[in-house]
Amino acid sequence: MISTLGVCYYPEHWDEAMWASDAERMVETGITWVRIGEFAWSRLEKVEGTFTFEWLDRAIAVLADAGLKVVMCTPTTTPPRWMIEKHPNMLAVDANGNPRKFGSRRHYCFSHQGYIQDCERITRVLADRYGADPRIHAWQIDNEYGCHDTIISYSDVARAAFQEWLTDRYGDVEALNTAWGNVFWSMEYDRFDQIDLPNLTVTEPNPAHVMAFRRFSSDQVVKFNRVQVNVLRAATDVPLIHNYMGRILDFDHFEVGEDLDIASWDSYPIGFLSDRLEGDDDHKAAFLQQGDPDMQAFHHDLYRAVGKGRWWVMEQQPGPVNWAPYNPAPLDGMVRLWSWEAIAHGAEVVSYFRWRQAPFAQEQMHAGLLRPDDTPAAGMEEAAQVAQEIATLGPLVQVQADVALIFDYPSDWAWNTMPQGADFDYFRLIFSAYRALRRAGLSIDIIPSTQRNFDGYKLVFAPGLANTDPTLMSDLRDSDALAVLGPRTATVTDELSIPPQTQPVITGLDVNIELSESFPPSHIRSVEGGGSVVHWMEKLSGSSPVLMKTEGGATVLTGDDQMWYLGSWPDETLWNRLVGMAATQAGLHTTALPDGLRLRTAGAVQFAFNYSAHSVSWNDQVFDACSVTAWDRQDRILK
Amino acid sequence: MISTLGVCYYPEHWDEAMWASDAERMVETGITWVRIGEFAWSRLEKVEGTFTFEWLDRAIAVLADAGLKVVMCTPTTTPPRWMIEKHPNMLAVDANGNPRKFGSRRHYCFSHQGYIQDCERITRVLADRYGADPRIHAWQIDNEYGCHDTIISYSDVARAAFQEWLTDRYGDVEALNTAWGNVFWSMEYDRFDQIDLPNLTVTEPNPAHVMAFRRFSSDQVVKFNRVQVNVLRAATDVPLIHNYMGRILDFDHFEVGEDLDIASWDSYPIGFLSDRLEGDDDHKAAFLQQGDPDMQAFHHDLYRAVGKGRWWVMEQQPGPVNWAPYNPAPLDGMVRLWSWEAIAHGAEVVSYFRWRQAPFAQEQMHAGLLRPDDTPAAGMEEAAQVAQEIATLGPLVQVQADVALIFDYPSDWAWNTMPQGADFDYFRLIFSAYRALRRAGLSIDIIPSTQRNFDGYKLVFAPGLANTDPTLMSDLRDSDALAVLGPRTATVTDELSIPPQTQPVITGLDVNIELSESFPPSHIRSVEGGGSVVHWMEKLSGSSPVLMKTEGGATVLTGDDQMWYLGSWPDETLWNRLVGMAATQAGLHTTALPDGLRLRTAGAVQFAFNYSAHSVSWNDQVFDACSVTAWDRQDRILK
Amino acid sequence: MISTLGVCYYPEHWDEAMWASDAERMVETGITWVRIGEFAWSRLEKVEGTFTFEWLDRAIAVLADAGLKVVMCTPTTTPPRWMIEKHPNMLAVDANGNPRKFGSRRHYCFSHQGYIQDCERITRVLADRYGADPRIHAWQIDNEYGCHDTIISYSDVARAAFQEWLTDRYGDVEALNTAWGNVFWSMEYDRFDQIDLPNLTVTEPNPAHVMAFRRFSSDQVVKFNRVQVNVLRAATDVPLIHNYMGRILDFDHFEVGEDLDIASWDSYPIGFLSDRLEGDDDHKAAFLQQGDPDMQAFHHDLYRAVGKGRWWVMEQQPGPVNWAPYNPAPLDGMVRLWSWEAIAHGAEVVSYFRWRQAPFAQEQMHAGLLRPDDTPAAGMEEAAQVAQEIATLGPLVQVQADVALIFDYPSDWAWNTMPQGADFDYFRLIFSAYRALRRAGLSIDIIPSTQRNFDGYKLVFAPGLANTDPTLMSDLRDSDALAVLGPRTATVTDELSIPPQTQPVITGLDVNIELSESFPPSHIRSVEGGGSVVHWMEKLSGSSPVLMKTEGGATVLTGDDQMWYLGSWPDETLWNRLVGMAATQAGLHTTALPDGLRLRTAGAVQFAFNYSAHSVSWNDQVFDACSVTAWDRQDRILK
Repeated sequence: MISTLGVCYYPEHWDEAMWASDAERMVETGITWVRIGEFAWSRLEKVEGTFTFEWLDRAIAVLADAGLKVVMCTPTTTPPRWMIEKHPNMLAVDANGNPRKFGSRRHYCFSHQGYIQDCERITRVLADRYGADPRIHAWQIDNEYGCHDTIISYSDVARAAFQEWLTDRYGDVEALNTAWGNVFWSMEYDRFDQIDLPNLTVTEPNPAHVMAFRRFSSDQVVKFNRVQVNVLRAATDVPLIHNYMGRILDFDHFEVGEDLDIASWDSYPIGFLSDRLEGDDDHKAAFLQQGDPDMQAFHHDLYRAVGKGRWWVMEQQPGPVNWAPYNPAPLDGMVRLWSWEAIAHGAEVVSYFRWRQAPFAQEQMHAGLLRPDDTPAAGMEEAAQVAQEIATLGPLVQVQADVALIFDYPSDWAWNTMPQGADFDYFRLIFSAYRALRRAGLSIDIIPSTQRNFDGYKLVFAPGLANTDPTLMSDLRDSDALAVLGPRTATVTDELSIPPQTQPVITGLDVNIELSESFPPSHIRSVEGGGSVVHWMEKLSGSSPVLMKTEGGATVLTGDDQMWYLGSWPDETLWNRLVGMAATQAGLHTTALPDGLRLRTAGAVQFAFNYSAHSVSWNDQVFDACSVTAWDRQDRILK
Repeated sequence: MISTLGVCYYPEHWDEAMWASDAERMVETGITWVRIGEFAWSRLEKVEGTFTFEWLDRAIAVLADAGLKVVMCTPTTTPPRWMIEKHPNMLAVDANGNPRKFGSRRHYCFSHQGYIQDCERITRVLADRYGADPRIHAWQIDNEYGCHDTIISYSDVARAAFQEWLTDRYGDVEALNTAWGNVFWSMEYDRFDQIDLPNLTVTEPNPAHVMAFRRFSSDQVVKFNRVQVNVLRAATDVPLIHNYMGRILDFDHFEVGEDLDIASWDSYPIGFLSDRLEGDDDHKAAFLQQGDPDMQAFHHDLYRAVGKGRWWVMEQQPGPVNWAPYNPAPLDGMVRLWSWEAIAHGAEVVSYFRWRQAPFAQEQMHAGLLRPDDTPAAGMEEAAQVAQEIATLGPLVQVQADVALIFDYPSDWAWNTMPQGADFDYFRLIFSAYRALRRAGLSIDIIPSTQRNFDGYKLVFAPGLANTDPTLMSDLRDSDALAVLGPRTATVTDELSIPPQTQPVITGLDVNIELSESFPPSHIRSVEGGGSVVHWMEKLSGSSPVLMKTEGGATVLTGDDQMWYLGSWPDETLWNRLVGMAATQAGLHTTALPDGLRLRTAGAVQFAFNYSAHSVSWNDQVFDACSVTAWDRQDRILK
Repeated sequence: MISTLGVCYYPEHWDEAMWASDAERMVETGITWVRIGEFAWSRLEKVEGTFTFEWLDRAIAVLADAGLKVVMCTPTTTPPRWMIEKHPNMLAVDANGNPRKFGSRRHYCFSHQGYIQDCERITRVLADRYGADPRIHAWQIDNEYGCHDTIISYSDVARAAFQEWLTDRYGDVEALNTAWGNVFWSMEYDRFDQIDLPNLTVTEPNPAHVMAFRRFSSDQVVKFNRVQVNVLRAATDVPLIHNYMGRILDFDHFEVGEDLDIASWDSYPIGFLSDRLEGDDDHKAAFLQQGDPDMQAFHHDLYRAVGKGRWWVMEQQPGPVNWAPYNPAPLDGMVRLWSWEAIAHGAEVVSYFRWRQAPFAQEQMHAGLLRPDDTPAAGMEEAAQVAQEIATLGPLVQVQADVALIFDYPSDWAWNTMPQGADFDYFRLIFSAYRALRRAGLSIDIIPSTQRNFDGYKLVFAPGLANTDPTLMSDLRDSDALAVLGPRTATVTDELSIPPQTQPVITGLDVNIELSESFPPSHIRSVEGGGSVVHWMEKLSGSSPVLMKTEGGATVLTGDDQMWYLGSWPDETLWNRLVGMAATQAGLHTTALPDGLRLRTAGAVQFAFNYSAHSVSWNDQVFDACSVTAWDRQDRILK
């Protein structure tokens, strides 16, 4: 596969006289794809039922005539103002009970049937008009589900839908009472319609109640998306796509992904570092203008799984953004580095957001490839360079990695509902494992918890996997891979309660969690041989061999030749040791990369990305700051 | 008295087949008491007016047959779901005006008459059935008043009740206007029904308004409790108990205690350290798995006073809990240490919460004496050890301490309403004094501000006592004790205004507060001879001899042979010096205990508790980590 | 001009028997002015339409008979309780949608027409009675507009008024859609009545929407104030005044000031340091009991401009206050220093708040000149000393400064709406420039952005000036002053969007902002020659000569002989260098003052104020802690 480049374009934001020149310059830059339309509802249907497609027809014509492939979007992320008059209760409601008002975007509750019908209607109108249009090469449905904390809604329509969902799940209310343990504080219900949404309770609500609400909320996204999928499937054969975000776990992307053909995501490395990553000040300062060295790769690997192998970067940060607490500019070379890293992880398309910086409204300080005055911004040259280099490098192949990491959205809901310690966060945990694997130079596949085929993997990690289908554990045991499970893996039931059997519930391993402890950052427990336990530690007993223990003699890691159970949250040093031990056992070669340098194998091509702001040395080579290096059969290709 | 052990048990949570074996094992463990029923309303009255007592009858029979004494509870802390349909406005309302919804516990407003009548009704039904039952040896009313911030409610029913309360207190509205100084900002009222609850005002409301609301809110708890007391008194002669919490000061426990026979409290040393104590990081880290060395003793001494000498620990932490920000496990020996410390302070009963960890609902990660799979948890063995040791040690006697500390709930409301400095908190102040007394090896009695008999006390401390009945000061002066008052003692009227006379209003002392200052932690003022003033300092003048002054010459402590006034908030060093000076003057012997070691005298038995995670030396002896030591007439009994 | 002293007095708070002695002691203290009545509405009109002026008549008589000049206030800051029954929807509404309740002060929404009419009515009644009274020498309208965050209201009446305001401004809704760029996220409106207030949106609302709401909110204050101005103008010729606050920028004080004769402000140096100033801990600790050395001077200079040359301190802190997070006492000498500093900056009157500390209600811990028991507080003696010193010193003259600093309220709204970095705050920026000018020993005039005459100025600074009328830039270029503009100056349109031309939009300078970056405090960029860029940096290009650059070679400062553009936020060292360079170019002499020492020239008299808690040396002289020094033609007058 040879990757291609794209760009996000808003013809409705610009004078029509500019379109042709824009399209021409896109092509000159080496861009192949252009995404349009996701915010354009107010221009397509200014008055309910009256459509204005002529401008869009002309825009498509101009773009396609220049040789660009169009990604058409449904505009359901931004219902126009009249829609709120039609459906006053379609707004989502926040945890304090306030409706989240019109005036920005994503102002809808996923449970509002009237709005869903209007989404189906506008999708059908678009599908009728453009479904068979050969200039449209892909469709994007809606935009960034979950952005701005929009999955959870405490609206009246959500409550009614939740009660229906509960009725479907439990059949009768006594079953629900039993499943949730509502006897605990006399929380038993007599009828489903008594069950409220779990906000504003006196103290924490029943975890089972919250977990059900989290599942329901995710299911509503799947259903919402599927309505548009069904309309578009009937009208077109081109791929259907959604553009996901970074570190949003409020709905099950694997389930949405099942209905789509390609997963894509919106990659804002510098904004994400500032906005949504834990990390000490030194780390954040060192990567302030580059982004975290593992955050993008993690999502590339995640969305490759969500897309069942097919994935894009739909929006690539091209310069400073506007929405993070602090918005510095990327260092020279980083736009190219990010682009190539995506390609090395298998992105079919890397599409920059956006073509030209808008001079108005919320994102006027968000860079594009062009400045508002139409002169090139810093990212433009790097994008053009990438386009040329793609041609030079030729096709890349993605091959299965040696290492798999199981990622599971409901686990995030579970531990978010019942963290048992202020610092227990699922993403934080699994990302700490991912980072350690990457520091050792490994390429990783992320896989869903529903996967049962582990052929080809030598090592499978599953930290913090909340619930397990019993078949997962037996299939893992039967596989050729060494499985490294825990902490907290297989310790709760599907209803977020403690299972009757010994935990963790792991086939063939005699290990027993006596109790679990959480502790503040000031408390660490040193491990024999180096490294420490932080945040979380389970007291383990059982006859499985002890593989690591604290200086006080407590078991940290136990297991047999096929499965290890880790009862603790490791610090960086301990993760490094653990990955090293596991790789040795699995017969994998590892290395110790310098801070900021990361590797990725794409078939015969080996990539190295230096996220550091200075050059680093590894393996007798020097890597420049913010550089991409690639070798193909011992020949360096890019530097 | 020989103390006994108890346990909290929830027959409704477990298969009836387990009850007999549970009861038998309780007895084997050395447990005497079993508390039941406080969360069982939905199982007792599933439908309004239809009662199901058979299961409870059987549970009582099983427990009593095994030889256990039952503490029966009223279940009014957890009204069932149908109650909210009956009384939709019974929910308390938070400071933002949102009702606090059903779905956890304590979901009621103390001012709702309909709910109070239903509480009276269920109490009467229980009293009728079990009031004369000889197997019931005590009653607990409701559960943990004030937990989850549930004393203050801004509901409509609370507002109406507050207006009535004001009418009763002031008679006519002009009297209220004058008492509150409402002329200040044209806040004068024409009628009582114009007076709103003091939330959501533009800037801070009148302190007198807030103080009245705080008194009212406390009174509502007293009234609520009394309704059940009255029903039970008519039906039974066994003791009536409530289980209070740690550091909850929102209602006057002494007033509730007046209506009851025994005070009890729920002691969670590790949770409280994490959740509700100031302290530098080093202190919190040193005692992370033991709890603060003075927090439990303080509450033991407080509730001994609230119970007029009779008190229990109704819930004793037996392992990690679930509800604090971080939840580490107790170090080995701490469950025993906590139990013995309670006994040394005079607890009649130490009752563990809970028998077996529940595998479901909110507290599924809260340890019990048994794990959910019925195997013993770490605390079980220590509880059994305590039971055996109690038998070995024989009866203990409580004697009056040499030192009294006056504790006053309205003072907390006063300084919370008008702190005048972000760090001025009544509990924090009085606890800093208590700690200093304990560091000096003293045993302490806590007494209410209504007490007038100081016979037998050599030293009385009353820091931060907001308001004083004039008789208190004259009785203190007439006593044989040295009274150490201040800072801020006797500086405001009952209406939280500045009294017309010179402050502090202390009989026979010529001291005058010229002004009061608060300052941030970065600002301290060094005192001649060592130690510093922190947080708060009054500028004192007057002819009373100066006993301590700052290096700048400002008076810190002044007084005569009978009364001292302290115009400053001392740091630890200064508290130590002050306690030393006062003890010398009072003819008391003090010592300087190492960090974590604390003493308690129980008649002829001297106890030492080492809260440290390592051994410490004192008085030529070594005390092991987490150990209890006891001497009786020079013979060491426990170690 | 010879400045005079005043005091704030509340006859309604005290027994009438005290009035005469109070008045006599005021005069003895050297006080000339007495302000009364701003909180007295409930005593003037206890029942709607029934007035009680007799007490006020008597109070005025007593005060005037003693020789005092009365400042009469309208009481509209504290509508009485019955007013809320008359106008239930007159309360402002907070950003969460909750009405801000009665029970303190400023409980009104500026958009409520019914309340405005009642304000007009009470003003007319007062004007009728006292407008021609020769004992009334000035009027104050309302009190502290904007205090307690009271400019912005999200009430229904505010929304309706905002829609009218928008209709007036834009004429038709398509013009608004275009001006705001509402096409961006399909935010286009069909009618004005669809436009809601910009709170509770899903993510940030359109900056243009917010900016319009901020302008509207300011305009409502201007209109509200003007109603009372119109009534009073018809009835009296004495000056009309409002008392503004420190660092409240939510309305355009210049516009309100246009309708009044004198600007006054309420100066609380210690409260403001604790409550509303950025600063590292060392700085705050060093000036804890003195206040920031530049905060008062800044506001003196600002309100001199707002008052078109005539200004007062209406409320001067005389001791500890009650409302800041921490409330320490002023060091000895500071009340005198603050008073003299105001006089040196041209205050006609310095009026202390308040005569006697109230023993009740919200401010009972706020010091006055007298303590509640009628004995003098610490500030009294210093006030009396100032009165005597004024007589000794004789008249002072204010002359135009060499340096002007342009201050612009809408710039604060603009950057508050669109900060683009968590630390970008307009006041913080402009105050950092002001401080640097003061550290160099310069006297400064603050001028509005509407000023076009720069005659006499050698240096004009305008950091962060959001929008510019094109005439400002050309007039600056045509002036004799060196203009130092930026960062962020002239970069947005009046609608808070990016202008079509190159930014900054500065006449005759070839400089171009390629992009803008914000960064966290941990990130700084060193500048050649010393100092660093912090918080914000623009990437500048263009042919204007580079005057300063980073060590990495990026342009920090560029310009020609008449105008400089600064694309960065300087740290203290860099500001010092920049001020030095600019002063040299402008032919101004500067000095380097020690920390805490500040100068002010008043005609032939040179003042030095030492805010330090210790003596400092400068220019071969020693300045005592907290001292005022003044020279007149080389003779030292005050020390």
